[in-house]
Amino acid sequence: MNDNTILIKNALILSPNTNFENKQSILIKDNLIAEISPDIDESNVSKIIDATGKILLPGLINTHTHLSMTLFRGLADDLSLDSWLNDYIWPMEANLNGDYCYIGALLGAVELIKSGTTTFSDMYFYMEDVARAVDESGIRAVLSYGMIDFGDEDKRKNEINENLELFKSCEGMGNGRIKVFLGPHSPYTASEELLIQVRELADEYDMGIHIHVSETQKEIVDISSEKGLRPFEYLDKIGFLGPDVVAAHCVWLSDNEIEIIKKNNVKISHNPCSNMKLASGIAPVSKLIENDICVSIGTDGASSNNNLDLIEELKTASLLQKVSTLDPKVLTSDETLSMGTIKGAETLGLESEIGSIEVGKKADIILIDTNSANMIPDSSSLSSNIIYSANGLNVDTTICDGKILMENKKLTVLDEGEIYQKARQAIKELKEAI
Amino acid sequence: MNDNTILIKNALILSPNTNFENKQSILIKDNLIAEISPDIDESNVSKIIDATGKILLPGLINTHTHLSMTLFRGLADDLSLDSWLNDYIWPMEANLNGDYCYIGALLGAVELIKSGTTTFSDMYFYMEDVARAVDESGIRAVLSYGMIDFGDEDKRKNEINENLELFKSCEGMGNGRIKVFLGPHSPYTASEELLIQVRELADEYDMGIHIHVSETQKEIVDISSEKGLRPFEYLDKIGFLGPDVVAAHCVWLSDNEIEIIKKNNVKISHNPCSNMKLASGIAPVSKLIENDICVSIGTDGASSNNNLDLIEELKTASLLQKVSTLDPKVLTSDETLSMGTIKGAETLGLESEIGSIEVGKKADIILIDTNSANMIPDSSSLSSNIIYSANGLNVDTTICDGKILMENKKLTVLDEGEIYQKARQAIKELKEAI
Ligand SMILES: [Zn+2]
Ligand SMILES: [Zn+2]
Repeated sequence: MNDNTILIKNALILSPNTNFENKQSILIKDNLIAEISPDIDESNVSKIIDATGKILLPGLINTHTHLSMTLFRGLADDLSLDSWLNDYIWPMEANLNGDYCYIGALLGAVELIKSGTTTFSDMYFYMEDVARAVDESGIRAVLSYGMIDFGDEDKRKNEINENLELFKSCEGMGNGRIKVFLGPHSPYTASEELLIQVRELADEYDMGIHIHVSETQKEIVDISSEKGLRPFEYLDKIGFLGPDVVAAHCVWLSDNEIEIIKKNNVKISHNPCSNMKLASGIAPVSKLIENDICVSIGTDGASSNNNLDLIEELKTASLLQKVSTLDPKVLTSDETLSMGTIKGAETLGLESEIGSIEVGKKADIILIDTNSANMIPDSSSLSSNIIYSANGLNVDTTICDGKILMENKKLTVLDEGEIYQKARQAIKELKEAI
Repeated sequence: MNDNTILIKNALILSPNTNFENKQSILIKDNLIAEISPDIDESNVSKIIDATGKILLPGLINTHTHLSMTLFRGLADDLSLDSWLNDYIWPMEANLNGDYCYIGALLGAVELIKSGTTTFSDMYFYMEDVARAVDESGIRAVLSYGMIDFGDEDKRKNEINENLELFKSCEGMGNGRIKVFLGPHSPYTASEELLIQVRELADEYDMGIHIHVSETQKEIVDISSEKGLRPFEYLDKIGFLGPDVVAAHCVWLSDNEIEIIKKNNVKISHNPCSNMKLASGIAPVSKLIENDICVSIGTDGASSNNNLDLIEELKTASLLQKVSTLDPKVLTSDETLSMGTIKGAETLGLESEIGSIEVGKKADIILIDTNSANMIPDSSSLSSNIIYSANGLNVDTTICDGKILMENKKLTVLDEGEIYQKARQAIKELKEAI
């Protein structure tokens, strides 16, 4: 008997670009997928999960969020971006501290686990506290500190120092579940000097870069008038871009910028719900994919979404491209599922470890029960059933790094009742402090 | 002790255009809301529901669907409308019969109850069988038979006869839960003669009319070239329009058509997911609302959605208007919730009976548990928490016509396991018959 073996049997296996029609059993040893077969000997395993009627797929990957912002869910809606930031989000953020960010991250972790996301990429403040929440919750994360200098040299030094400290203290934490990226906030909040230093540090420490680019039309106008170039043209000119750059949003892109993105193999995190809710615009995702650019999916913070349900986000991504191009054939359910799995892994440079069901990859696996009215009758295509019919609350079981975090919709590691109570208390205190 | 009284206490009551801040108890007597108070005497009631931490709102109203098409969920996706209809939907529909439509409607009813919809408006075939499913399930429905004559006089007589038979056999069924409308399919499948007869019958029998209008650009081109007028101009000219007409889709509208809709007080059923998935286009909903036109929400059939989750549909409606107008302030969560409740009731001419929490109205009530990670912390606005954060699977309890159809997520009337098995068998047979 091996203490760290889990056998999942009778599953409908769905993994990007692979057909598992005759295989329905997966053996997990320690934190890895050890075997995928029609049938696996049950005698030596410590735990058996019968997945009859359940779709088994890679844990979903959310490549752009701000997990602690779950605290600001529904704080303010239906506002212009300016008013939302100036009158609500920024005043609340001014009173954040590590404890609040920790509890916000735990609340977010509960929501991620319940809706089938096993890996997320974050950029925010008090990231050591977010790392603590990730470590305890058992999920996987790429964390970056959101660096903003507005051209101030002292601030720049402090911000870079903060991000490097995060790298030194948290890289590899939680059995390697935590990686640290550099997080220059955006080309309009981070100076040219900061962006150039980030590129040097990325090369020196082999760290990825997480940045917001081209979210709103205003940003294009502002950068164009200051730099005489559109955002990606500017970033290209200063040598900032590369295959290790994850650019979130990318709503407003010229053809030349799409060329620049392709040439530099920049990875894109598409955030449709946030872009729609804040009325930022519609990213040209199907055009990016036509150009073989890697596009993955993110929810952005819960405060502009207002949830972290990646299945809902994927459906929205597909439907929004279909209607905005007036072509129902773009972003098929298979392509869209890839955005939430293997493309997410590629975006984060983790494609050798996660994003698909393959022997040797990390055992990041979810099960979705098809015995739910919204998923019956069983679709001709498993990916269609997931993308168009399901939502995050259909997720039944979540496994990350070989550890069961939720089984039959019950959390096994985190105490959700306690977390809910603490999150409610935190937002109460933050509102009173205004 | 009264046998038909239900007391719901400690609820967070949310109803369009009313503030219930200090009231949290609702008394249901028979099928009506009898009292709304801060506190209600518990001694004489037959059933008490403690709704602590739960949002109580009117049962949602889906004003355009084809319930039996749940059988075709995921049958075919990512196709042009032509191929989807010609190669998949129509060949399958050719083999439908009353038994299949009955089981499809039951499957749909399970999904509606589980996601908080208590009233739906349908247009399809074998509607007596759909009525049977509605009667048994306990939900509320407006049913119409989809009349298509393509100008053939014999077919026209048969189609009208079919719809009138439905009226005679089913109007008022299920304690008045079932109403029958006339269902001319669309101005491109129903001849001018049929449309004119429908108007006469609507006036004679005081029946509402349910029709598809202006779903695709092709429809506008075809009708314009045949009639020399855009669809609503043509319908206005032949005297078809009136406040009893529910027009589904209405994606492509000229300013003159918006004037015509307003002048005739036509009701609109907006179907964003279907319009996006089939790449039909984006309906100008915020412009319609600015013009004081009554706009409600529908999922269309599950085959082009692919679910019946009205909360997801409402979120999509709001976000799609925000991004397509580039104005984050349009379709606020309050306005959007109205589309799913009181505007739905107005659309169906049922605003004196359903669509809000008011004494004397039918007890069509749902509860949504806020103790779920995706709804914490409690939003500043209950409607924001429902529209932007929740989805249909957050619905906890569904009551229709004073009868509990689901409590704590468990169905009380329908046997879901049996229905799932029969629905799977039905689609298996239908696929084999092709
Ligand atoms: Zn962001
Ligand atoms: Zn329809």
